[in-house]
Amino acid sequence: MLIFKAPEVTVQRLSLYLRALEKLPNNSVLSSKQFSKWIGVPDNQIRKDLAYFGYFGIRGRGYKVEKLKEEIIRILSLNQKKELAIVGVGKLGTALLAYPGFKKDKFQVKLAFDNNPEKIGKTLEGVKVHDVEKIPRLLPRYKVKIGIITTPASAAQYAANKLIEGKVEGILNFAPIRLITPDNVRVKNVDLSMLLEILSFYLSRNYQLDLSDLSLARV
Amino acid sequence: MLIFKAPEVTVQRLSLYLRALEKLPNNSVLSSKQFSKWIGVPDNQIRKDLAYFGYFGIRGRGYKVEKLKEEIIRILSLNQKKELAIVGVGKLGTALLAYPGFKKDKFQVKLAFDNNPEKIGKTLEGVKVHDVEKIPRLLPRYKVKIGIITTPASAAQYAANKLIEGKVEGILNFAPIRLITPDNVRVKNVDLSMLLEILSFYLSRNYQLDLSDLSLARV
Repeated sequence: MLIFKAPEVTVQRLSLYLRALEKLPNNSVLSSKQFSKWIGVPDNQIRKDLAYFGYFGIRGRGYKVEKLKEEIIRILSLNQKKELAIVGVGKLGTALLAYPGFKKDKFQVKLAFDNNPEKIGKTLEGVKVHDVEKIPRLLPRYKVKIGIITTPASAAQYAANKLIEGKVEGILNFAPIRLITPDNVRVKNVDLSMLLEILSFYLSRNYQLDLSDLSLARV
Repeated sequence: MLIFKAPEVTVQRLSLYLRALEKLPNNSVLSSKQFSKWIGVPDNQIRKDLAYFGYFGIRGRGYKVEKLKEEIIRILSLNQKKELAIVGVGKLGTALLAYPGFKKDKFQVKLAFDNNPEKIGKTLEGVKVHDVEKIPRLLPRYKVKIGIITTPASAAQYAANKLIEGKVEGILNFAPIRLITPDNVRVKNVDLSMLLEILSFYLSRNYQLDLSDLSLARV
């Protein structure tokens, strides 16, 4: 198995590049300067990001949109649909079930779980809610490798443990708690309070904008 | 006005440090090694982050929890409650109105807006829903400096324009679109599809964990 040394900001930017490319006609060719200006990332940074994965464009001619899009989709393993499971169908979990970003061709919520007997057995947004105890059994059956935790903080580690038993490889965690997980399970935390604290820091301050740091624009 | 050169990852980590410190007794003192181990950030990184703001701890004795907490609260401007406005009270917006992280002493949703006549005038989670057209008038009156956009992508730029007219300084954007804003308005995007794409990248791959890059653990 290959070891990828690309830093995660590179992976973030690839996702950003893909989003931008998806808005362009397939048969267009962009100069590296045009592409750079459009997405607000310096030219040499884009080149460096793509070079991690052996993609070097056409020297002097820029990027073929269709080709680059295919490359990034391959790099991000988006060439086949990914199945998701949501644990915790309170308000946030239910909102995510209806989130239009998940309804595209790349990601699909296949399973939902809760520990509330009043919710178990119901169907929300076309997805049946199961007992959390069934996570380890159902996940492999539905080939789910990514779990989304939208439980209260107090239930999040238990949810994570069940997902790990079910052999997930990635967790998107909305609970405001740091999860303990083995090294082979990747966790992304969506910590809304932290995002607000970052905004709070910048209120009424003069700050220097560092364009090379993508996390400024997209975290 | 001071110019802060601290990169945003430093601000992110300060928020993480604060969260960790809040779980400790006020009168405790932590060695820098203990603190480092607990939060999973290298010792010298913590020192560097704090040094940006002139805080150097007690050499050889570590960190006084209460003092450090106060310092970070001051740096992040969290010493007074911040008022928020939510634009778009669909499923996600309504879920955020009920989000417990906003109910603490630091942030409070004061205003909610929508363009749907059936929603305008209603009260959700104790917050009255107003017409989006009233944003520029109501925001200054309620001293709201941070707006949260949970509209569909097609309405997000319009919502941002109204918030900017209302003199917000920070926007937390959940709509999957890149907003155009003036330089003095800070935008944080919560792009759930991007987070899933990052997880997707790491599925079934062997990767090198780079602990110095906080964005790995918390984005």
